[in-house]
Amino acid sequence: MSASNGVRVSVLGLGAMGAALATALVEAGHTTTVWNRSAGKADALVALGATAADTVGEALTAGDVVIACLFDAASVHEVLDPVADRLAGRTLVNVTTTSPEQAVEIAAWAAGHGVVYLDGGIMAVPEMIGSPGSSIFYSGSEAAFEQYRPLLDLWGESVYFGEDAGLASLYDLALLAAMYIMFAGFAHGAAMVAGAGVTAGDFARRAGSWLTAMTGGFAGYAAVIDGGDYTVAGQQSLEFSNLGNMIDASVAQGISTEAIDMVQNLIQRQIDAGHGKEGFARIIESIKHPR
Amino acid sequence: MSASNGVRVSVLGLGAMGAALATALVEAGHTTTVWNRSAGKADALVALGATAADTVGEALTAGDVVIACLFDAASVHEVLDPVADRLAGRTLVNVTTTSPEQAVEIAAWAAGHGVVYLDGGIMAVPEMIGSPGSSIFYSGSEAAFEQYRPLLDLWGESVYFGEDAGLASLYDLALLAAMYIMFAGFAHGAAMVAGAGVTAGDFARRAGSWLTAMTGGFAGYAAVIDGGDYTVAGQQSLEFSNLGNMIDASVAQGISTEAIDMVQNLIQRQIDAGHGKEGFARIIESIKHPR
Ligand SMILES: NC(=O)c1ccc[n+]([C@@H]2O[C@H](COP(=O)([O-])OP(=O)(O)OC[C@H]3O[C@@H](n4cnc5c(N)ncnc54)[C@H](OP(=O)(O)O)[C@@H]3O)[C@@H](O)[C@H]2O)c1
Ligand SMILES: NC(=O)c1ccc[n+]([C@@H]2O[C@H](COP(=O)([O-])OP(=O)(O)OC[C@H]3O[C@@H](n4cnc5c(N)ncnc54)[C@H](OP(=O)(O)O)[C@@H]3O)[C@@H](O)[C@H]2O)c1
Repeated sequence: MSASNGVRVSVLGLGAMGAALATALVEAGHTTTVWNRSAGKADALVALGATAADTVGEALTAGDVVIACLFDAASVHEVLDPVADRLAGRTLVNVTTTSPEQAVEIAAWAAGHGVVYLDGGIMAVPEMIGSPGSSIFYSGSEAAFEQYRPLLDLWGESVYFGEDAGLASLYDLALLAAMYIMFAGFAHGAAMVAGAGVTAGDFARRAGSWLTAMTGGFAGYAAVIDGGDYTVAGQQSLEFSNLGNMIDASVAQGISTEAIDMVQNLIQRQIDAGHGKEGFARIIESIKHPR
Repeated sequence: MSASNGVRVSVLGLGAMGAALATALVEAGHTTTVWNRSAGKADALVALGATAADTVGEALTAGDVVIACLFDAASVHEVLDPVADRLAGRTLVNVTTTSPEQAVEIAAWAAGHGVVYLDGGIMAVPEMIGSPGSSIFYSGSEAAFEQYRPLLDLWGESVYFGEDAGLASLYDLALLAAMYIMFAGFAHGAAMVAGAGVTAGDFARRAGSWLTAMTGGFAGYAAVIDGGDYTVAGQQSLEFSNLGNMIDASVAQGISTEAIDMVQNLIQRQIDAGHGKEGFARIIESIKHPR
């Protein structure tokens, strides 16, 4: 609740995530101004010591650095386009989830209005903000990243990828894609055992520790991929990686095979192309070169 | 190298896995007889103290309990059918990977020949046998599981699922399916960032810790699935779980979208059926009820 701590920050968007980010700033003693489209969401933050702005323009003027945590790229433009002139000369840190192309587009828009731009992708849920498991990816202005790093570090591990504003989003989306695909794998496994009376809770316990252990395999696959030679000895071959047993068992349980078929198709296309004796890591070639 | 330690064990099949299992038995002091179809694979074990049998029948006679670690269900029949009479009265622990249906079939075959049958599914690679991360699933004769448990525990955590001989395989295949789907997710993410110059090794490090953290979500999904009510408050809705950003970014990178499309399809079918406001865990219904 101290009145100031160097940097004056404004936060636009007080949804679950924006509120968590703003709370960390206020608690660290930063002069924090908050704005949200619909009323009422600032109350808890004001009670902590933040100032609520009535308009976006007012919020911009109050901050050296402006954090945008809105819904999507369109809402960022909806909120900032009308007040672009008041953003000039300031730094915009946009942690709204966007596509890499949208991040690049917003960066160009910012540059056109004399705004320093840093794009962010949040690898955490609101409850994790400020805790050890949280990390936030950044790309765009390295100068802005360095200048505001002490502030950014309040939210979690800050990772900078490069000047291309789309990089953080791309990395973020790549990890989210891997996560959703893993969740589908969990659901598929849980559906396989459900017919035999195994609860999803029992499967979750075992799948959690099993998949955690199996992430240990990523480094080996990566070494083969980066090395560019899928014929290195000691790997499980594509031919050995036959998922027929898993597909048959799924069919026998009367469930959809689409999740496991997806992997089998990645494997099969490499076998069909004559690479059956090469390592399983080669499935990435099926992804890099679509049918 | 002590000459005997209670149980006399025979191991059929000295591939990478069979050799690891036999080594643990010999090192624990069990009287161990080993057999392999092609010559030479027993040498290292004989040096440790095992006895090599020239024929399968000889190996069977030497063991109270017979471990089969062959290639597949067909090879189990190929090896054991001709000598079924010599297996009578003994216990067969078959840790060869099979489908649940094949395990049930082999159990029936064993019962028909007066053989006590325990089916096993190994959740480890050979290097892990005997280390804390290794677990082996069993189903079939509970009496055999209890009787030989001290021996089975030499290989890792022993988990018993029930008298239905197919259960261990089903659970094993469900976890393997989840693993392969997760590996495809890793490959998809690595392919997404590859175009921006990120190495697979860099992606592997982050994906490993990110996905490990995200396995923490399984318990919550499982609670919703087991509770049977996908409308419980506080969940991320199916509508919110839009993977469009990930699909668009994959398209922009020129890579295949099949891995992420698979998840999007599971989500979309539930939204189309009018469940968009319900929790993401509901994707399991798309799997349980194929198109
Ligand atoms: N929650 C998470 O776990 C998480 C994790 C990583 C990243 N993110 C990202 O963080 C961002 C915010 O997420 P959240 O969880 O805070 O979402 P949320 O709780 O749904 O809040 C959305 C926020 O955006 C505002 N908004 C939406 N459309 C707007 C518009 N057209 N004009 C002005 N304001 C608008 C909302 O204002 P109103 O209150 O007026 O509706 C609200 O403040 C999203 O891009 C999300 O992808 C979230
Ligand atoms: N390796 C792993 O990481 C792992 C993990 C879990 C489960 N498993 C399972 O463990 C079992 C063995 O795997 P492994 O890694 O040891 O495989 P492997 O190294 O390829 O060895 C296969 C073994 O099966 C024998 N075999 C194959 N066909 C046969 C036939 N028709 N008649 C007699 N013997 C036959 C081979 O004998 P020859 O030497 O004469 O060819 C060899 O002993 C498989 O079911 C596998 O799925 C393995």
